[in-house]
Amino acid sequence: MTTNVSNLQIDAEQLWNDIHDTAQFGATAKGGVKRLTLTAEDEQVRDWFRAACTAAGCEVHVDTLGTIYAIRPGRDMTLEPIGIGSHLDTQPTGGKYDGILGTLAALEVVRTLNRAEIETERPICIVNWTNEEGSRFAPAMMASAVYAGDFTTEDILERRDADGVSVGDALDAIGYRGSEPVGQIRLNSFVELHIEQGPILEAENKTIGVVDHGQGIIWYDGKITGFASHAGATPMPLRRDALAALSEVVLKVEELALAHGPHAVGTIGEVTIANPSRNVIAGDLAFTMDLRSPDSATLDALDRELGAAVAAIAARRRVDIALERVWRKEPTHFNAALVDAVEQATGRLGYSHRRVTSGAGHDACNLSAVMPAAMIFVPCKDGVSHNELEDATQADCAAGANVLLHTVISLAGVAK
Amino acid sequence: MTTNVSNLQIDAEQLWNDIHDTAQFGATAKGGVKRLTLTAEDEQVRDWFRAACTAAGCEVHVDTLGTIYAIRPGRDMTLEPIGIGSHLDTQPTGGKYDGILGTLAALEVVRTLNRAEIETERPICIVNWTNEEGSRFAPAMMASAVYAGDFTTEDILERRDADGVSVGDALDAIGYRGSEPVGQIRLNSFVELHIEQGPILEAENKTIGVVDHGQGIIWYDGKITGFASHAGATPMPLRRDALAALSEVVLKVEELALAHGPHAVGTIGEVTIANPSRNVIAGDLAFTMDLRSPDSATLDALDRELGAAVAAIAARRRVDIALERVWRKEPTHFNAALVDAVEQATGRLGYSHRRVTSGAGHDACNLSAVMPAAMIFVPCKDGVSHNELEDATQADCAAGANVLLHTVISLAGVAK
Repeated sequence: MTTNVSNLQIDAEQLWNDIHDTAQFGATAKGGVKRLTLTAEDEQVRDWFRAACTAAGCEVHVDTLGTIYAIRPGRDMTLEPIGIGSHLDTQPTGGKYDGILGTLAALEVVRTLNRAEIETERPICIVNWTNEEGSRFAPAMMASAVYAGDFTTEDILERRDADGVSVGDALDAIGYRGSEPVGQIRLNSFVELHIEQGPILEAENKTIGVVDHGQGIIWYDGKITGFASHAGATPMPLRRDALAALSEVVLKVEELALAHGPHAVGTIGEVTIANPSRNVIAGDLAFTMDLRSPDSATLDALDRELGAAVAAIAARRRVDIALERVWRKEPTHFNAALVDAVEQATGRLGYSHRRVTSGAGHDACNLSAVMPAAMIFVPCKDGVSHNELEDATQADCAAGANVLLHTVISLAGVAK
Repeated sequence: MTTNVSNLQIDAEQLWNDIHDTAQFGATAKGGVKRLTLTAEDEQVRDWFRAACTAAGCEVHVDTLGTIYAIRPGRDMTLEPIGIGSHLDTQPTGGKYDGILGTLAALEVVRTLNRAEIETERPICIVNWTNEEGSRFAPAMMASAVYAGDFTTEDILERRDADGVSVGDALDAIGYRGSEPVGQIRLNSFVELHIEQGPILEAENKTIGVVDHGQGIIWYDGKITGFASHAGATPMPLRRDALAALSEVVLKVEELALAHGPHAVGTIGEVTIANPSRNVIAGDLAFTMDLRSPDSATLDALDRELGAAVAAIAARRRVDIALERVWRKEPTHFNAALVDAVEQATGRLGYSHRRVTSGAGHDACNLSAVMPAAMIFVPCKDGVSHNELEDATQADCAAGANVLLHTVISLAGVAK
């Protein structure tokens, strides 16, 4: 055991090489990764990961949904392990960092402890959660949701992809349907390192985002029914233009989200006009709406004010606007002690940092409902993810892994 | 020859029956008509129409683009005939009145003169223009455009439909490639009766629209390039949301068209977001824009002010907005003497009426460039056309045909 724990650093080059070596499994021509969950490419990276964990002295478990748990023993094996990790699956046009950084950094944390011959009081468990992305099977973050009790294993095993293949069959096809029930490996807490997937850290030139909240989310499916008529023959005052009504809704969403800033956001990202034509006024259209806030009361206020504004727009423009709520997710409040542990580790390492809210959903958000959880963000170029252009620097990846390392050391404790 | 020309009326029931009898050619389950130009259904209605014109004592000519001219002789056959008519082709989900009313009313005008044994000084020529709708072959109003010199016959004969069939082949297939060059039949003037395709007459409870202008038109293809990013992770102030930018453009088009009222109109009827997703901010989108005014200077002012507003929106929102002008059509100023003739005939018949601008394009608009032309509008239910629900009343159809009858009598002159 080393005596100089406080100066311990992960091997930045090793982590960087692991990220780029494993990016061969599903590599795309544009430099990204296409590694949908439970495919042959996912099998390749899982095999690599399992072998690497075993080589790092971990005992590897696989549960009935294929989630991989690699346990580095602690001094006191009666204590539940500290969970660290993320996911190795990607979007169809995914990048090299989303999920992968957090999983391979967890592996590198264990290797670093090994190299320094540090024994921790608690065991440490590296986790690769199955199907975080949700691109092949819905819902996203499927395995951690079952872990948190939101769905049953049986339900999820029957979910099918676009080709009709079930989760169960896909697990069997790649040999990753494990024997251990989901949740049999109890974790004391969970810490996930991830790229930010947003632009704040880069814009403010901060190395580390200490994530204290996850956005609550409301999703709506919307429909506007106006009246399709001739673009040349219908005077402006007689129109019931569905797109003009939507335009007001779009700008109202923006205005109200700004008014509930700095954390609230609101987005209309999809619009489909029925039978569109350049010389026909839009009569019917469908759209979706995404509202988020890390504060439940703020989310409610945004939702309520928007509902009133939409009703006023519909009445004034003599159109019908129907909003069907299809999802509501409560905000995540990450565990205060864990968030503090992340922040203190960051401060001791001397990295610039700020508190941030996770705008995206993550496995750690699901797990936060059933155990203390926290997240560490590092910047990604232009805030881009779910894109082959996704990029991050070696230095930032290493900084995030170092924060993860020192957070884990503080949570797991160094054996005396 | 009757002595009571001023009380002459068309046979309202005959016209109504003709409209509904010919609606069998391409009848749809929803009560509309699908009779695309130069199809088997178009052949059926053309055969019916040719036979009916011949039975009404007309000499039928077909030109090389399939346009049918049925000439009722006048006393002085050295004079060019007064052209009346419209088109018998429809949209894919078309109605029973658009174009058809004007063509069959022209036939009924000739029959009415026959029944009353009225000889006119000038000949009268009923015309069925090929491919007014433009649904199968572009451009719309193809035959009248060639007549007006906007395209050559050779160019148009080579235009192809979505299946690769040329206009020439389609004409041969139904036996309607005539031998007479387009324009060989010279017309003195042209009067077209049509449903309004807009809501003004119905809203103001007027029976007849005396059309004095046709809208000038500018068409743009637009593209907005913002930045696609995560709907949850991108704070409102850092967004470059293409749909929010478009929303401002939509409302600015509406505002400026209203400001240039009462005749100017502006419409964005098509929007396509690239790779849309409910949790991704729209990064790239395409749209179309349609601006119209019956006054060229007003159209220019609307266009200029909109260009400046769009540039300001793009700068403020840090997006790129590209507008490519794909068409400009100058406004139509229908011949003042013919418009007066229509208005006087309407007044003598005692129908309520108002001057109107044609928002849609019509064959008469093309012909107006090369001969005196005018149009008569009658109301259609809810202003709807290009729709199987298109509807008009027997009384309004008859009123329009009576105005056409008396306008033609005044233009062609009654032989002494």
